[in-house]
Amino acid sequence: MIRRFSLLVFVLFVSNTFLSGQPKNFTITQAVLGQNSDFAPERLTGLAWRPSTKSYTYIQDKDLLQVDAQKGASAAILSLDKFNENLKQKGILEARSLRQLIWVDNTKLSYITDSLYMEYDVEKAAILNIINFDENAQNQDLDPLRKRIAYTLDNNLFVVSETSTPVAVTSDKNKGIVNGQSVHRNEFGIEKGTFWSPTGKSLAFYRMDESMVTDYPLVNIDERIAQADPVKYPMAGMKSHEVTVGVFSMETTNTVWLKTGEPKEQYLTNIAWSPDEQSIYIAVINREQNHMWFNQYSAITGEFIKTLFEEKHEKYVEPQNPMVFLKSKSDHFLWQSQRDGYNHVYLYKTDGTLVKQVTKGEGMVTEIIGIDAREQFMYFMSTKQSPLESHLYRVDLKTGDERRLTLAAGTHRVLLNTEAGFFIDTWSSTTVPSRVELYQQNGKFVKQLLAAKNPYNDYSMGSLDMVTLTANDGKTSLYGRVIKPTDFDSTKKYPVIVYVYGGPHTQLVKNSWLGGARLWEYFMAQKGYVMFTIDNRGSSNRSLEFENAIHRNIGVNELADQLTGIEYLKGLSYVDTARIGVHGWSYGGFMTVSMMLKVSKIFKVGVAGGPVIDWSLYEVMYGERYMDTPEENPEGYSNSNLKNYVKNLKGKLLIIHGDIDATVVPQHSFGFLHECVKQGVQVDFFMYPRHEHNVRGRDRVHLMQKVTNYFDDYL
Amino acid sequence: MIRRFSLLVFVLFVSNTFLSGQPKNFTITQAVLGQNSDFAPERLTGLAWRPSTKSYTYIQDKDLLQVDAQKGASAAILSLDKFNENLKQKGILEARSLRQLIWVDNTKLSYITDSLYMEYDVEKAAILNIINFDENAQNQDLDPLRKRIAYTLDNNLFVVSETSTPVAVTSDKNKGIVNGQSVHRNEFGIEKGTFWSPTGKSLAFYRMDESMVTDYPLVNIDERIAQADPVKYPMAGMKSHEVTVGVFSMETTNTVWLKTGEPKEQYLTNIAWSPDEQSIYIAVINREQNHMWFNQYSAITGEFIKTLFEEKHEKYVEPQNPMVFLKSKSDHFLWQSQRDGYNHVYLYKTDGTLVKQVTKGEGMVTEIIGIDAREQFMYFMSTKQSPLESHLYRVDLKTGDERRLTLAAGTHRVLLNTEAGFFIDTWSSTTVPSRVELYQQNGKFVKQLLAAKNPYNDYSMGSLDMVTLTANDGKTSLYGRVIKPTDFDSTKKYPVIVYVYGGPHTQLVKNSWLGGARLWEYFMAQKGYVMFTIDNRGSSNRSLEFENAIHRNIGVNELADQLTGIEYLKGLSYVDTARIGVHGWSYGGFMTVSMMLKVSKIFKVGVAGGPVIDWSLYEVMYGERYMDTPEENPEGYSNSNLKNYVKNLKGKLLIIHGDIDATVVPQHSFGFLHECVKQGVQVDFFMYPRHEHNVRGRDRVHLMQKVTNYFDDYL
Repeated sequence: MIRRFSLLVFVLFVSNTFLSGQPKNFTITQAVLGQNSDFAPERLTGLAWRPSTKSYTYIQDKDLLQVDAQKGASAAILSLDKFNENLKQKGILEARSLRQLIWVDNTKLSYITDSLYMEYDVEKAAILNIINFDENAQNQDLDPLRKRIAYTLDNNLFVVSETSTPVAVTSDKNKGIVNGQSVHRNEFGIEKGTFWSPTGKSLAFYRMDESMVTDYPLVNIDERIAQADPVKYPMAGMKSHEVTVGVFSMETTNTVWLKTGEPKEQYLTNIAWSPDEQSIYIAVINREQNHMWFNQYSAITGEFIKTLFEEKHEKYVEPQNPMVFLKSKSDHFLWQSQRDGYNHVYLYKTDGTLVKQVTKGEGMVTEIIGIDAREQFMYFMSTKQSPLESHLYRVDLKTGDERRLTLAAGTHRVLLNTEAGFFIDTWSSTTVPSRVELYQQNGKFVKQLLAAKNPYNDYSMGSLDMVTLTANDGKTSLYGRVIKPTDFDSTKKYPVIVYVYGGPHTQLVKNSWLGGARLWEYFMAQKGYVMFTIDNRGSSNRSLEFENAIHRNIGVNELADQLTGIEYLKGLSYVDTARIGVHGWSYGGFMTVSMMLKVSKIFKVGVAGGPVIDWSLYEVMYGERYMDTPEENPEGYSNSNLKNYVKNLKGKLLIIHGDIDATVVPQHSFGFLHECVKQGVQVDFFMYPRHEHNVRGRDRVHLMQKVTNYFDDYL
Repeated sequence: MIRRFSLLVFVLFVSNTFLSGQPKNFTITQAVLGQNSDFAPERLTGLAWRPSTKSYTYIQDKDLLQVDAQKGASAAILSLDKFNENLKQKGILEARSLRQLIWVDNTKLSYITDSLYMEYDVEKAAILNIINFDENAQNQDLDPLRKRIAYTLDNNLFVVSETSTPVAVTSDKNKGIVNGQSVHRNEFGIEKGTFWSPTGKSLAFYRMDESMVTDYPLVNIDERIAQADPVKYPMAGMKSHEVTVGVFSMETTNTVWLKTGEPKEQYLTNIAWSPDEQSIYIAVINREQNHMWFNQYSAITGEFIKTLFEEKHEKYVEPQNPMVFLKSKSDHFLWQSQRDGYNHVYLYKTDGTLVKQVTKGEGMVTEIIGIDAREQFMYFMSTKQSPLESHLYRVDLKTGDERRLTLAAGTHRVLLNTEAGFFIDTWSSTTVPSRVELYQQNGKFVKQLLAAKNPYNDYSMGSLDMVTLTANDGKTSLYGRVIKPTDFDSTKKYPVIVYVYGGPHTQLVKNSWLGGARLWEYFMAQKGYVMFTIDNRGSSNRSLEFENAIHRNIGVNELADQLTGIEYLKGLSYVDTARIGVHGWSYGGFMTVSMMLKVSKIFKVGVAGGPVIDWSLYEVMYGERYMDTPEENPEGYSNSNLKNYVKNLKGKLLIIHGDIDATVVPQHSFGFLHECVKQGVQVDFFMYPRHEHNVRGRDRVHLMQKVTNYFDDYL
């Protein structure tokens, strides 16, 4: 996210509606591609703490600058030219920038290319520890002692070191068996498939057998003759894949399989090693996803040792974070759970005893940032202050005393250095594009490192209103965002476009720069549209109950809350209530089509991208968590199947899909078109060939131009 | 085509613009589905000559009426009730009408269902000769003596008789080998895959090995999880299928394979048996399609006997009609060829000697209708009178004297009965909806059997002008059709929609009812559009040179002629030249996109269905005939590849494709969209799921509504 930096710019931000000279409008290309490039607020690029020092480093032009946090003295410690000179000597391709260099210890930075890992000693100006690997390698994972790289080639897993040739950890010929890669479609906080033991003696890895899973037939039209390019896609209620965990010993080169047992269709999530490398802990979840067993297995024999504790919920449980062991007490660990209605941290002993609930209260812990060396304080990010904001807190692990360390209203990200006693806070809000500030770790302000100017100073920006509404239950707060047209005249009437997502694990409205909106929304405001977004029940960072309100009945509470938003809009004198449109992608595509069909009198125009149309066509992991299986919940599936509402369509609806979308498969949109045609209902469609679940890259300009044109033509 | 009949209607047609009361407009459903149903001009349903009599029969309501052509006496000879009573006695499902009954001899009518063939003796009111077959059977083919039925099940061929169980002629387990079905993608006048010898002793059949042909990956989205449903699709220049011909003896149940030799990628077309059942004749064409060998093979040994004659052409040869043997001289046969520039009939001897050219002159023989018992006259249909018309002629096989037998200007279809000495002429023209007339076979008018009234009498019909223009070569006549808006006021300006096809084997402009137009064009005229169509060079029924003008350079002369049409339109005072649209399907889709891209200033809106975009993605048979291979003709392929003109697009273009189009595969449109997106060019698209190369049935209403809306919205 950190893109550009100029050290001399310390101009104070004045106002996001301040304009110098004749304000400009965005081109569509700027609106779509510019937000995180040309218009990204200035930040400190590659900002990091140098290990075992009180200095931080960042990239300025071609240099790596080091600044002493206490004394403020700064110096260039490495130049790109020097680095490239070293690379050249070793016959390694030149680097374009220093951004890929990452501190691994006090003097060394790691650097990784398509075919090698290496370290660079800035003191000695020397390249060390080169580990070569296959240029087709994927999922590279360095062991904690930085001696070996695990990687996958096709469906198998390999390990290589500086001195050894690659060792095949697996050699499955059946392509339906996938080793060392992320499993369960990433729906359980799982982001990788290999897990090094603390000293790199052993490598735990996922083995996924998906040979029994049905193929979804995607097609590659880029070949001379289009080619079948199927993906394994287990749909809700259908046969799913079977996952096991292997432990490969570097010493014996043997693999032990953890005895995770039956039923085979279960979820093995949040894998963690014990500090002594004897055990592996796994949060095992049943296919129904309403029961979690937090289990310990022997990493030596694979035997099941014990269940530490269980978690159940009538709707679903979804642990997303592995345990974190304390260093001072290796039988104590931190565990995150939403069991009291909010995501909080609990301190457990490895015998399964709950020592205490570490964090409490209304508000979600969103991340554990770190623990100081003495293990007195745990630092964490939380929404406790406001669901729209993210702040750093610390809690005294003994006393439970909690203190908020970032005070400015807004959305904060921090780099903590407990060794040095500092953190660097990078934050923004609806009125602050970006600031970078140095603090002592107790929250005492040290100094401002950067205050970015408003990158839109020369542009015509619609004004942003943050609104808080009350849901139809009479109690739940809903947060929304209104962006007014740039030519705003309160006596005029403007068309409105609702931008919606509405599904779990996502929050659109935030107290951050642009209010969390995409620049395209401001582009549309320049064209005279009111842009509106509200985070309905089902979205994230509020509470367990807020998010799981959609369970078994997807689309109902979400829609009710969107209609609360519409009621608000109808009360605004400047809204042309006959010209309300809606746009969204993925879950937001589902919401868009739902809104067009279920309350067809309100919405004149809709544009739905990659929409879920029929949840029985969505995959097992996400689909069954929120909806159970089609067999268990026929009514919920039927009520949410948008093919059942086709005949209600009154407005103009454009459906958009990528032809190789392996997330929401094209069958959703194709089946919807089929039903529309069968019922004689006119609907529009566009397909983005060679695009997956989103249209990315330069083609996104084409997409958003198409979306824009559709509203221009019909709203 | 024959749909309704009421004997009492002999009202004379007055004028196609005569209107009684307030004229009505069509609904879109009428416009799309009504032309051949509710608005089909009255005809004599099921009209046929009864063999060995001077009587013809047709269906009136539930009765089969028989009329003596000489005396005029008529009588019901069978009722549906009676027939169903007979069926019921045999335990056969009731028939809905008598339409499927077909005369097979003087007293018997054949009747075929999904699982049986039978004959019905009208004299005895008895069901005879029941041959049962598998209900999944396809390609049923009755032997000439009506003892056996050949049929295919999946990829194999079977024969069954009344008394025997089915015999497997082939039993190929490899699904890539297809027996007894039409081959070469029907591009050589081939409509079936089985050929009974004259007395049914042997069955010749095609065997197509397409196991080496690349799959095109179509997808069936109607399954619970979408399923791959690939088709074998050899693209221009790629590996094609290999065809051989087997001869199965009913007596020995052995199959002899004709030694058609190498190269294996050749075309075996126009299969015919010698009257003595000893030989089989095949027009063998090389893959380049510029050389035909008319070969004789022994049906007993499979040996090649001789080449009777060859035909070559620098562009292509395309024999479309098997030889026809004379009965009086079994070593004489008729052969059709375009070798003198028009399709004509030649008399040959089986030793390969050309006896004479039977028909001559400018104009195409389109069908040999029959030869009288004495083999004095050959009856045939020809465009000799006018390329817009089809007339019956007879030629004296000895003297060559020719006489036109249908005199009324228009498009005629005849039922000839040389035994009785009559023919029945069913014809229409731009001013005559439909007439049925009885003639002596020498052309002497006997009486009118039916004069249909104008089915559009109550409707508002745009007036039809037939126009003749001259191509840019200064000599070639081009025929066009203009349908004016129903509210026509010559002082106003109207938008125009060009409806185009433009490819070989098709002619759109005819002197027949509605001028050959689809009713939708009159629907659009009711909405205020001028509808225009012109048959460019490349279309059929003109001359070899007219049609093969497209060779190796597809899209060029066709476009030039369409622009000749545009020049004509621009000269019309009532045409709004800023509002010209174009619409076409298949080759017409190719033409539509070509016109939108290559002369982008002229056309404001285009709608292209199932368009060929890149001829290298079209199949071998048709593609290489007109374009040679991409390797042989890179320039022609490049010039006609519409992806190369994407950046020219100025107007609004809607592309439509069926998702299981196995003729013009979806890769054409998908690749075009991909290119448009890549170049940032906006284009619209719609896909009809579960539809092949055309959108048929009720869904066609949705399609044409979409096409209509697009012109309404943007033209």
